[in-house]
Amino acid sequence: MNILVTNDDGITAPGLLALAQEMRKLGEVFIIAPDRNWSASGHVKTMHRPLRVKEVKLSDGTIGLASDGAPSDCVALAMLGILPEEIDLVVSGINPNANIGHDVTYSGTVTAAMEAMIWGKKGIAVSLDSPENHLGVLDYQPAATYAGKVVRRVMKNGLPENTILNVNVPGLPFEEIKGFKITRQGLRVYRDQLIKREDPRGLPYYWIGGDPPTGVKESGTDFGSLKDGFVSVTPLQLDLTNRSASEQIASWDWNG
Amino acid sequence: MNILVTNDDGITAPGLLALAQEMRKLGEVFIIAPDRNWSASGHVKTMHRPLRVKEVKLSDGTIGLASDGAPSDCVALAMLGILPEEIDLVVSGINPNANIGHDVTYSGTVTAAMEAMIWGKKGIAVSLDSPENHLGVLDYQPAATYAGKVVRRVMKNGLPENTILNVNVPGLPFEEIKGFKITRQGLRVYRDQLIKREDPRGLPYYWIGGDPPTGVKESGTDFGSLKDGFVSVTPLQLDLTNRSASEQIASWDWNG
Repeated sequence: MNILVTNDDGITAPGLLALAQEMRKLGEVFIIAPDRNWSASGHVKTMHRPLRVKEVKLSDGTIGLASDGAPSDCVALAMLGILPEEIDLVVSGINPNANIGHDVTYSGTVTAAMEAMIWGKKGIAVSLDSPENHLGVLDYQPAATYAGKVVRRVMKNGLPENTILNVNVPGLPFEEIKGFKITRQGLRVYRDQLIKREDPRGLPYYWIGGDPPTGVKESGTDFGSLKDGFVSVTPLQLDLTNRSASEQIASWDWNG
Repeated sequence: MNILVTNDDGITAPGLLALAQEMRKLGEVFIIAPDRNWSASGHVKTMHRPLRVKEVKLSDGTIGLASDGAPSDCVALAMLGILPEEIDLVVSGINPNANIGHDVTYSGTVTAAMEAMIWGKKGIAVSLDSPENHLGVLDYQPAATYAGKVVRRVMKNGLPENTILNVNVPGLPFEEIKGFKITRQGLRVYRDQLIKREDPRGLPYYWIGGDPPTGVKESGTDFGSLKDGFVSVTPLQLDLTNRSASEQIASWDWNG
């Protein structure tokens, strides 16, 4: 099993290291990750400029490749043959915030897994629902351990066609996590606000600020399961067709 | 009806002008668009840096706002109150290439419409399936006219909840376009290749190159309908849960 580990926080992020170390128990691990933070940068294919790739030594002494592309570019580089071996599985993370609800199309972590699927490979995104206003260093070990549990199940059972797994782990000590729930995508509630400031020359600039997003706590959803202390595993697809809306729209008068 | 026109090719793109001029027949038009090309840049929320916004005179003498954010940032700026009026509908385009199949999560054009939906507004993405290897200036008028036809229907019928419309217009003269098809998202076939080059200092860099994508010609899909000469209207949603896969995955042994 050849596993590509990537993320959207950059190759030096502690979440990537914890994930890579866990994945090494399960197969041969290759790392290609962005050389900087690409959070909330979406699904990217960089075609208007070339990409650079360089070797980087991680803090545990292992070597990874850093690219100046987005997470999905890192996956594409692997699929296009920049590595000596063919990749079977892409595991992306561990993101230091949950990726749930509408987050999934913004999320570099999730879109890296989507990119794997587009190339016909298995993709899993792993995120940690870190506590709001947490201070100090996050403990990625519980999320890494749960990522390992998910990957073992995928190795045993395969993945249904056209499906990635979006895994979110509660920000709790390992012994307080209650197990797994297979969930559906829930509803995020964004609380963005526009903050206008002036630069030293008197010209305006705008921050998208406000409080961190929350969500609608509903049973069976990613958000609801996290808040109940369960690891949320959501199978996602890339066919976005709204089939129930199709019928309604097809009934409109489309002549002329 | 207050209509925001945006795109992912930049505020000076001719496709945006053609779309804005058509939309002026239907309501009050506001323009906020990126100050550069953001093609294949995905769904972005720029939070790590502030955004600049400046007035730009378009080639027909009207004024728009250019931002250094992504298309979805432009929509967020409008929703967060940078305009004097509240927006009812976001129309994004006209993109000079079709956005079909797996393109939809990469596409700045489509993700701008998604962003509108996340803010509870109507969103429509419009793209032109320009002929492969076309030379010279594209004619956006047929696509603009069809965009107007779609918007009129949305004004009359509303849009089903949690739905955007992804509109793709064949690259044909107006009189050769056969009308509308309500479609499902089809399958793109990407033909990317990695092209390695060396800079003047002997260091490698990599292009994601290769031939433009094609698709699987299937009846009822976006790609199939375009190739048959119809305007494709695909209702898309942002709930990516793969419900049929959920059952299968829930049947795995998740204990321990």
